[in-house]
Amino acid sequence: MIRLDTSGPIAAIRLVRPATRNALDAEGWRALAAAIRGVAASDARVLLLRSDAPGAFCAGSDLGELAGLADDARARPPFRKMMRDAIDALPRLEIPTIAVIDGDCFGAGVALALGCDLRVAGERARIAVTPAKLGISYPREDVERLVDAVGHGQAARLLFAAETIDSTEAARIGLVQLACASAEARAVEIAGRIAENSKASVATLKALIAGVDRARHELHDQSFDDSFGGSEFRDRLAAFYSRRKGGKSGPP
Amino acid sequence: MIRLDTSGPIAAIRLVRPATRNALDAEGWRALAAAIRGVAASDARVLLLRSDAPGAFCAGSDLGELAGLADDARARPPFRKMMRDAIDALPRLEIPTIAVIDGDCFGAGVALALGCDLRVAGERARIAVTPAKLGISYPREDVERLVDAVGHGQAARLLFAAETIDSTEAARIGLVQLACASAEARAVEIAGRIAENSKASVATLKALIAGVDRARHELHDQSFDDSFGGSEFRDRLAAFYSRRKGGKSGPP
Amino acid sequence: MIRLDTSGPIAAIRLVRPATRNALDAEGWRALAAAIRGVAASDARVLLLRSDAPGAFCAGSDLGELAGLADDARARPPFRKMMRDAIDALPRLEIPTIAVIDGDCFGAGVALALGCDLRVAGERARIAVTPAKLGISYPREDVERLVDAVGHGQAARLLFAAETIDSTEAARIGLVQLACASAEARAVEIAGRIAENSKASVATLKALIAGVDRARHELHDQSFDDSFGGSEFRDRLAAFYSRRKGGKSGPP
Repeated sequence: MIRLDTSGPIAAIRLVRPATRNALDAEGWRALAAAIRGVAASDARVLLLRSDAPGAFCAGSDLGELAGLADDARARPPFRKMMRDAIDALPRLEIPTIAVIDGDCFGAGVALALGCDLRVAGERARIAVTPAKLGISYPREDVERLVDAVGHGQAARLLFAAETIDSTEAARIGLVQLACASAEARAVEIAGRIAENSKASVATLKALIAGVDRARHELHDQSFDDSFGGSEFRDRLAAFYSRRKGGKSGPP
Repeated sequence: MIRLDTSGPIAAIRLVRPATRNALDAEGWRALAAAIRGVAASDARVLLLRSDAPGAFCAGSDLGELAGLADDARARPPFRKMMRDAIDALPRLEIPTIAVIDGDCFGAGVALALGCDLRVAGERARIAVTPAKLGISYPREDVERLVDAVGHGQAARLLFAAETIDSTEAARIGLVQLACASAEARAVEIAGRIAENSKASVATLKALIAGVDRARHELHDQSFDDSFGGSEFRDRLAAFYSRRKGGKSGPP
Repeated sequence: MIRLDTSGPIAAIRLVRPATRNALDAEGWRALAAAIRGVAASDARVLLLRSDAPGAFCAGSDLGELAGLADDARARPPFRKMMRDAIDALPRLEIPTIAVIDGDCFGAGVALALGCDLRVAGERARIAVTPAKLGISYPREDVERLVDAVGHGQAARLLFAAETIDSTEAARIGLVQLACASAEARAVEIAGRIAENSKASVATLKALIAGVDRARHELHDQSFDDSFGGSEFRDRLAAFYSRRKGGKSGPP
C-alpha cells in the first residue's frame, strides 16, 4: 500500500491503493508513518510524496474504518493519533517534503498534503475538505495548517461548503504552491534543485520557517554567524566565482 | 434601513439606505446589530449580508455623524462601541456569514465585510479603506482583520494610499475570496452548499478556524473524537455510500 | 554608493553600485543606514527605495566581504548587526516605504526589500533567496518577514530550492504587491497618493499594521477616538464635501 524508495538523494514515498483511490486504512497510515521513519534514517536530501494510483493522490481515511468509529468510542483516540503519527512526521523531517497532487485529494488527504512543505498540483487534481459533509470535525492541527496556507476566508469556504476545487483554483488561493500540466516533472525539478543545495543550510532554514524556537533568538543569530564557518560555504562560494568567471550572471 | 429575513435556512440581512449608498448612521448600526441578534436566535444555517441599494454594499459610517465627533469628544467611545457591536457580532455567530459586495464598499464598509467569514465580489464592486484621506484612524480590530486577509504589504497599500480597487484586484490580493459576474448567485450557491452540510460540524469548524481556545487542545481533540458519535455521521455516511453505489465518484 | 534625496514630500534613496549590481559592502550598508536616518530626520512623507544601477535592485551582500567571514569568526556578529541596522531601520520609520524592484534582487537584497512596507516590481526583476546555494543561513528576522509575506509553502520553495522568479510570479505569491511594466512610475503614483493623505493617520496606521503594542488595546482605542479631534479631520471632511458637491462620487 506504501512504497518507499530511498536509493538516491530524492527519496520517494508512493501511495498505492487504487481500489480506494488511496484512501488509507489503519494499515496504510501505519505503513506511511514507518516509511517516513525510513526516510529520516536515510541519506535522502528531499522527499517526494506521490501516488502510483492513477487519478488519486489520497482520498482520505478509509470510510469503512471511519464507519466503525460511530459505534466504538474507545477506538477514536487511537485512530486520531495514528493519523497524527503519519501526518505530523512530515514537518518533523529535517529534509524538505513535496506533495505531488495529480488526482483526488479529499479529507485527510488534504491534511496529509498540508503536512508537506510544498504542494505541486497537476491537471487531474480535485481537492475537497469534506468533514462537514459527513457530520464530523477536522483535527485542529490540520485546520491550523489549512488556515496558515490559505487564510481564514478560503479555509471557511473549503471547510463550510466543502466545494471541490481544481489545481488552478488551489494555486490561486495558496493551497498548492504550483499548478502545472506536468506536476510530477515540476516537483522532480524542484527536488533536484534542493538536492544540489547545502543540506545543512536547508535543514536550518526549514527550522526557521517552522518558527521552531522562535523565542530562542540568540541561538538563531549564533547559527547564522556560524554558518559562514562551514566548509560548504568556502566550496560553494568558490564554485560561484568560477561560474561567474565563465560569464554566467545571476544569483549565487 | 436594515431588512432581516430568517424564513429559510439561508438568512439574509439587507442594507437599504440608497440615499447614502448604504453609509450607516447610528440608527443603522444599531439596527444591524439587532438584525444579527435576530439571526442568532433563528434556525438559520448561514447568513448572507447584502444590499438592496443598487451600486452600493456599504459606503461606511455616515459622514454627517462622523463630522459631529470632531467637536464632541465624549461621543467618540460610544460611536466606536456601536460599530463594534454590529461588526464583531458577525464572527461571534455560530453560523457562517457571507458578504456580497457588488457596489461601493468604503471605510467601515470594508470592516463590516471583513467581519464576515467569506466575501464574494461582483463587477460593480469598488473597495477603498479611507481613514487616511479623512485624517482619522481605523479601529485595531479591523486593521488586524485586514492584515489577516491580505497581509502586511497589501494592508499598507490599501490603508496608506487609500486606492480604490475592483473585484478582480480584491480577489487577487485575498480581500475577497471570489470575484465573479454574478456575485449574488455565487454567494447563494455557496450558502446552499453550507446549508446542506452538518450544522454541528460547521459550527465546530468555524470555532477552530477562529482559533477559539487554541490553547485548549485537549478539548478540540475530544471534540474531534466525539464527532464520530453523532447520528449525523451515520446518516451522512449512509447517504454517501448510497450515492457511490449509484455510480457517483468524488468526495463525500 | 547611496544617494539620498529628501527635497520633497517623496524622499528617495538610490543604490548606485553598478559594478556589483548593487551588492552592498560594509561601507554600503552603513551608508544606507545613515541615509535612512536622514529620511527620519526630514519632513518626507513617504520613502522610495530604488536603484540607479540599470538591471539591478540589490544583488545582496558583497560576496568578497562574505568570503572573509569564513576565516574570521569574530567578524560575523558585527556583519550581521550592520545589515540589521540598515534593514530594520526601514520598518522603524514612521513614514511608509516602497521598494522599486526592477532588476536583480538576490539574497540580502530580498531582505532589504522585505523591510519596506510595499514592493513594486518591474519586468526586469529577477528575485532569488540564495543562502542554501552558498551553504549559509538567513537571518531570522528576514525569514520571518518572508514567511509573513508569502506563507510557509512559498517561503520553503524560495529558500530550499533558491529558484529565481520574475515579477509576475513574485506578485502571484505575494512577495511583491504590484507587478507592472512601469514599476517606477507606479511606485511614484502610490507615493504621491500617500503624500496627499494625512501624515498622522498614516503613521498611526503603520504602527497598527505592524502590530506595535498589539497588547495595549486601550491605547489604540483611545487613539482611534482622538483621531476625530484633529484639525486634519475637519479640513479633509470639508474638502470631501466640497468635492461631492462638485458631482464627484466615490470614496472620501
